Amino acid sequence: MADRLIHDAAAVLSIGDELILGQTLDTNSAWLSGRLTELGVRVVEHATVDDDCEAIAAAIRRLAARSRLVIVTGGLGPTIDDLTRRALADALGEGLVEDGQMLSAIRLYFAARGTEMPENNRLQALRPESASALGNAQGTAPGLHARLEIEGASADCFCLPGPPSEMRPMFEEFVKPRLRPPVGGVIRTRVIHTFGLPEATIAERLGELMARLRNPVIGTTASGGTVSCRIRYAGPEERASAAIEEAERAVRAAVAPYDFGADDDTLAAATLNELRRVGERLVVAESCTGGGLGALLTEVPGSSDVFRGGWITYANEMKLGALGVEKRALEAHGAVSAEVACAMARGALRAAEAAGARAQHALAITGVAGPGGGSKEKPVGTVWIARATTRDGDDEIDARRFYFPGERSAVRRRSALSAMAMLRMALTGAGDSHLLGEQRSPD
Amino acid sequence: MADRLIHDAAAVLSIGDELILGQTLDTNSAWLSGRLTELGVRVVEHATVDDDCEAIAAAIRRLAARSRLVIVTGGLGPTIDDLTRRALADALGEGLVEDGQMLSAIRLYFAARGTEMPENNRLQALRPESASALGNAQGTAPGLHARLEIEGASADCFCLPGPPSEMRPMFEEFVKPRLRPPVGGVIRTRVIHTFGLPEATIAERLGELMARLRNPVIGTTASGGTVSCRIRYAGPEERASAAIEEAERAVRAAVAPYDFGADDDTLAAATLNELRRVGERLVVAESCTGGGLGALLTEVPGSSDVFRGGWITYANEMKLGALGVEKRALEAHGAVSAEVACAMARGALRAAEAAGARAQHALAITGVAGPGGGSKEKPVGTVWIARATTRDGDDEIDARRFYFPGERSAVRRRSALSAMAMLRMALTGAGDSHLLGEQRSPD
Repeated sequence: MADRLIHDAAAVLSIGDELILGQTLDTNSAWLSGRLTELGVRVVEHATVDDDCEAIAAAIRRLAARSRLVIVTGGLGPTIDDLTRRALADALGEGLVEDGQMLSAIRLYFAARGTEMPENNRLQALRPESASALGNAQGTAPGLHARLEIEGASADCFCLPGPPSEMRPMFEEFVKPRLRPPVGGVIRTRVIHTFGLPEATIAERLGELMARLRNPVIGTTASGGTVSCRIRYAGPEERASAAIEEAERAVRAAVAPYDFGADDDTLAAATLNELRRVGERLVVAESCTGGGLGALLTEVPGSSDVFRGGWITYANEMKLGALGVEKRALEAHGAVSAEVACAMARGALRAAEAAGARAQHALAITGVAGPGGGSKEKPVGTVWIARATTRDGDDEIDARRFYFPGERSAVRRRSALSAMAMLRMALTGAGDSHLLGEQRSPD
Repeated sequence: MADRLIHDAAAVLSIGDELILGQTLDTNSAWLSGRLTELGVRVVEHATVDDDCEAIAAAIRRLAARSRLVIVTGGLGPTIDDLTRRALADALGEGLVEDGQMLSAIRLYFAARGTEMPENNRLQALRPESASALGNAQGTAPGLHARLEIEGASADCFCLPGPPSEMRPMFEEFVKPRLRPPVGGVIRTRVIHTFGLPEATIAERLGELMARLRNPVIGTTASGGTVSCRIRYAGPEERASAAIEEAERAVRAAVAPYDFGADDDTLAAATLNELRRVGERLVVAESCTGGGLGALLTEVPGSSDVFRGGWITYANEMKLGALGVEKRALEAHGAVSAEVACAMARGALRAAEAAGARAQHALAITGVAGPGGGSKEKPVGTVWIARATTRDGDDEIDARRFYFPGERSAVRRRSALSAMAMLRMALTGAGDSHLLGEQRSPD
């Protein structure tokens, strides 16, 4: 490209009936926004329109008039409802041509997998006359890049395929190197994550730190029990690191000991890191979460050094037979009780030892995730979580009753996160801290 | 309301720095679009802007000029970066007033939880002069409804809180009863889900069914191995059911036996239903998925009648000790091998029997989810899945090697889904069908 545009603002456009009809969740806009912000480009809008050629072309032109950079995702598939190629050509006022190199690349993609190219995929070799193709190593849909001239201004438009596994590497390979953020200022962000306090309490603790005109500006967002404190700096690059770090220190001091990480850190990763720090290991025993706690822990690469595994004791027979929970405990107190949660946690430690996979900690979860199964004493959302810890014959157990409002999936997720928070905070010496949703027993 | 608007088109606006910076995924737009479409209102656009009063007010006015119904989510929290109240007032050209009833309701919310209202929450009792408040039973943020007059036309604007657990019931209680879809035509959709074929093959099988000008129009969307065929009918209400059902029959005939359900059906629910149909039960043994298969199965309410539980054998000691996998199998073939997958599945059946939780089927998963751990013979994405079935002493085992491209979370999710697909199709008599990603052994 001869003249490179300064990308002082960007817009993200997602294409698809499935998005506008609410059948599929758009994850691309959030991912692209995060990357663009990191790279110093200010995102001003996300928009989504359906698989309608006119609507796509109009949206491309509207956004190109508003910002120097438009990133479009979706609508590049091999079927006739994939209309981004045609819409970009219309926005440019051009026709479509078949690109020989693109066609060869698509044929090669199939040949490498030992199969012929289906005739449908030939559509994917079309591009607007002035556009250039962007290669796709993960799939058959090439991307497109074109320069639009609208209302006397120019904008770069990149069209990328919808599947995140294809879109993301193509952004890194083709879009990132061509970005030209404005000089003289950068945007830097950091997010400090907390778990266990309500958002209003976090905001009260932050107090004046949240004043709108400060730089960095600090805001909060709540999601499923996690409250994240967002720090956003805009200004000269040389002051960025110090400003962000000073803000981070102030935020962490205000929200401690509930802060568990920054940016991409998860509560699972933070919990595993605490286990690593003390050189101890974990097993789990899950009833209402059905494996969800283990799944969150093992979503973290490299978790196998401290996470051994566990038992999904969804049926009561599994609680009895695999973990040695006593039948009379189940009968006297019910599966959702302090007694059964403690017996599951202790049983998991014993069973792990017997299996030759010794652990110092066990987390057990048993609850009423709903929508059925609730009672007056134990309404839907009632969950018992037990942490059992054994060190040199010194045993400790901490069982807590929680009430989590919301749907089945929310109850299950909050249960798994709260179990991790109980362990993480016990390992950091803050094990007595009250967690959101916890119901202190009357005794 | 005296004059009720016909809501022939709707737009959804999401508010939040965390969305525009890519720190949080917007799930509200998809959910609202799904509900609006079901209720006969055509959604024309989603838009997202940041916590900026001017940008929010401008977006509300732009969308109100385009459609008779604007639904705004987010920005109603108790902190000073929650600006939707102020922006709506600006869009209306009005000031804010404190609403005594709203304030009482917020105080009551806290009182019912045995605590005082934090002073910050008082902000949530503000509303534009002409707006009315919408009660929130799940949280402290009341919603707002106002009528905007823009360019000679009127639009209803509803502002709802961002947390889905609050927003969704408020949509049902306050927005749905006030919707007035256009007469003379309805929109009906159905989505038929398939698993196991690539999207282009599904499109080839659908062929002419996907022509753009048909009614219902049929499109496809791929996501993580699931390809969904979207059917959308627009026309007179009396023809809707027949048209949708005819299209569903044609789609299912074209994609069989890979279709597993419609609309909100999940592969997990379909698998559990097949188990119920034959009166058999399932246990799982999970290595690289770490509980994710169990978590997907138990996300379905009522799964406990056919799903017993399982073992998360993340550490090799757990495979040996809890499931009886032989050490020499691990040493000779490695943890990611047909031998170990089969031993895990058979071991899970035995261990379930020993625990008193007998099952006829076991699914075992062991693979290289990445990003580390790959080799030339077993690159990241290599997964072995075994299904063991025992009936009246008649044992059957089916082990398959898969290669799933993509990131750790994608590999894990595809693994869990493919395991369910193996069992579901075995139960429907299509157990020999090749699944996407499956690598047939050379023998």
